[in-house]
Amino acid sequence: MAGKSPEGSWMGSQRLIWNSFSLQLLQKVLYCGICHTDLHAVRNDWGFSTYPLVPGHEIAGVVREVGSEVKSFKVEDKIGAGCMIGSCRTCEDCADNLENYCSKKVLTYDGARYYDGTMTFGGYSDHMIVDEHFAIHWPENLPLDGGAPLLCAGITTYSPMKYFALDKPGLHIGVVGLGGLGHVAVKFAKAFGAKVTVISSTPSKKEEALKNFKADSFLVSHDTEAIQLHPAAAGTLHGILDTVSAVHPILPLLSLLKDHSKYIMLAAPEKPLELPVFPMLMGRKIVAGSNIGGIKETQEMLNFAAEHGITALLKSFQLTT
Amino acid sequence: MAGKSPEGSWMGSQRLIWNSFSLQLLQKVLYCGICHTDLHAVRNDWGFSTYPLVPGHEIAGVVREVGSEVKSFKVEDKIGAGCMIGSCRTCEDCADNLENYCSKKVLTYDGARYYDGTMTFGGYSDHMIVDEHFAIHWPENLPLDGGAPLLCAGITTYSPMKYFALDKPGLHIGVVGLGGLGHVAVKFAKAFGAKVTVISSTPSKKEEALKNFKADSFLVSHDTEAIQLHPAAAGTLHGILDTVSAVHPILPLLSLLKDHSKYIMLAAPEKPLELPVFPMLMGRKIVAGSNIGGIKETQEMLNFAAEHGITALLKSFQLTT
Repeated sequence: MAGKSPEGSWMGSQRLIWNSFSLQLLQKVLYCGICHTDLHAVRNDWGFSTYPLVPGHEIAGVVREVGSEVKSFKVEDKIGAGCMIGSCRTCEDCADNLENYCSKKVLTYDGARYYDGTMTFGGYSDHMIVDEHFAIHWPENLPLDGGAPLLCAGITTYSPMKYFALDKPGLHIGVVGLGGLGHVAVKFAKAFGAKVTVISSTPSKKEEALKNFKADSFLVSHDTEAIQLHPAAAGTLHGILDTVSAVHPILPLLSLLKDHSKYIMLAAPEKPLELPVFPMLMGRKIVAGSNIGGIKETQEMLNFAAEHGITALLKSFQLTT
Repeated sequence: MAGKSPEGSWMGSQRLIWNSFSLQLLQKVLYCGICHTDLHAVRNDWGFSTYPLVPGHEIAGVVREVGSEVKSFKVEDKIGAGCMIGSCRTCEDCADNLENYCSKKVLTYDGARYYDGTMTFGGYSDHMIVDEHFAIHWPENLPLDGGAPLLCAGITTYSPMKYFALDKPGLHIGVVGLGGLGHVAVKFAKAFGAKVTVISSTPSKKEEALKNFKADSFLVSHDTEAIQLHPAAAGTLHGILDTVSAVHPILPLLSLLKDHSKYIMLAAPEKPLELPVFPMLMGRKIVAGSNIGGIKETQEMLNFAAEHGITALLKSFQLTT
């Protein structure tokens, strides 16, 4: 095991693991985003939180130590870590660089490590231990603070746009919800060359959508008349990214889609949504789900964000310990 | 207008249209399938039937007369006509050979002709008038009786298997429901080289599925334990074709799909289905709808059926007039 002694205080169990694996990195955490998922986990909203729990999965920092077999990182490199710190590396999904769909993936926090069952702790911490495979090289010209949230919100919106071919210039994309995911989705869609319509339940977000995030148009989601009947809205979109985790009707939103187009859900309402079948048949429409993205694609997304000056809107504050 | 005088009696309005267009054919109806849609229409189940109504949209026969500009058919050719007899021919869908999604398509019966607004009458008749573009060349070695239902049930199942890439050898396809659509879906999937699992609410259909239609396995749809937990079932399917028009739960069926796989709905339950979002996100699963197919693909489907000896199971009887 190469590497200097770690600085600062960090947990005994992490020290044990660090000593056990030569392919890992010790990351000094400099910035960590707060995702809505963190709040759900802290409050045990989904009923499977295990305490003690350290949230945080949008983590930017620098490498402090490297394991003896680490090849692509060196001490002082800028580094990112996202929602996963491990996966089985042998299944079909892992072979396809889709570790995010591996049934044995190890979440960055509140997950059990597959090799010893110990719990993982997230980025609201001084240090993180990251397997080299799950560490992201930080692009030189991307700010660490505004870039950190992209490790979740960025890849969650970028990946489905790539997979469902919604990244082509000239398309018309709808983004439902203008929160953490939604505003990043607008930025990526604009960078891909799309015309973007924001659909929100909050009319007052219109100015923010159009001026701050450069969306092209804005619709109020409960204004079904405007959505379903107006020729400038109905049947105009090639794809919709729905970032809303509250239970909500999708029928009026489906009517915004052109034939053969795609409605992609990125957030998980706790109860099932109502799926109207007839309009799906009549336009060969697709409703799909997508969940973050693989490590290779996360690197690609972060490089793309750096090239196009995409960062998340943020309010920064110091963690007190 | 070329062509001999029509034989038999047929409606005055059809005679008028026949005289008006040089690109049309007069088809002597020899066989016409009875589709569940016909029953819905006759009973006005959907609330938009217009009487008098002549059902029938799985129509096989021979050409009796041809318009002066008809090029690809001649008198006595065997001919098929399906769900549509017209469309706008100018929209994006029509340009893509997807007349079935044209918003101005003219249904074979109970539809208004786009050029004069008169109602169309279907294949429970002596004769039909068919635009050359919407007429299907009948393959020489396909029986007219067993092939007729393919003009609806065949294309409805064949088209989504092609579009959603479920026509590749070696895939594992699920077919929900073993009625008019379902049994034809099994035959096409087997002809594409798939392993096929039939999922039905009727346990007694097992023998029919396995012996008559050569399905590889059978699941009872309400046996959620077998579906969701058995390793030979859960997470094994590349695609599901759901042919059931009754409202039914899709959550247990979604669990049969592998990651990144497709659940295609071909029938339209009257009420919305419950769409569980979380499992869709976790496996990047797709739920989609599909509705019949275009004319070019209907021809391709019928040729494929002839090559592979695919016909619909039928009980034949004489229409009394």
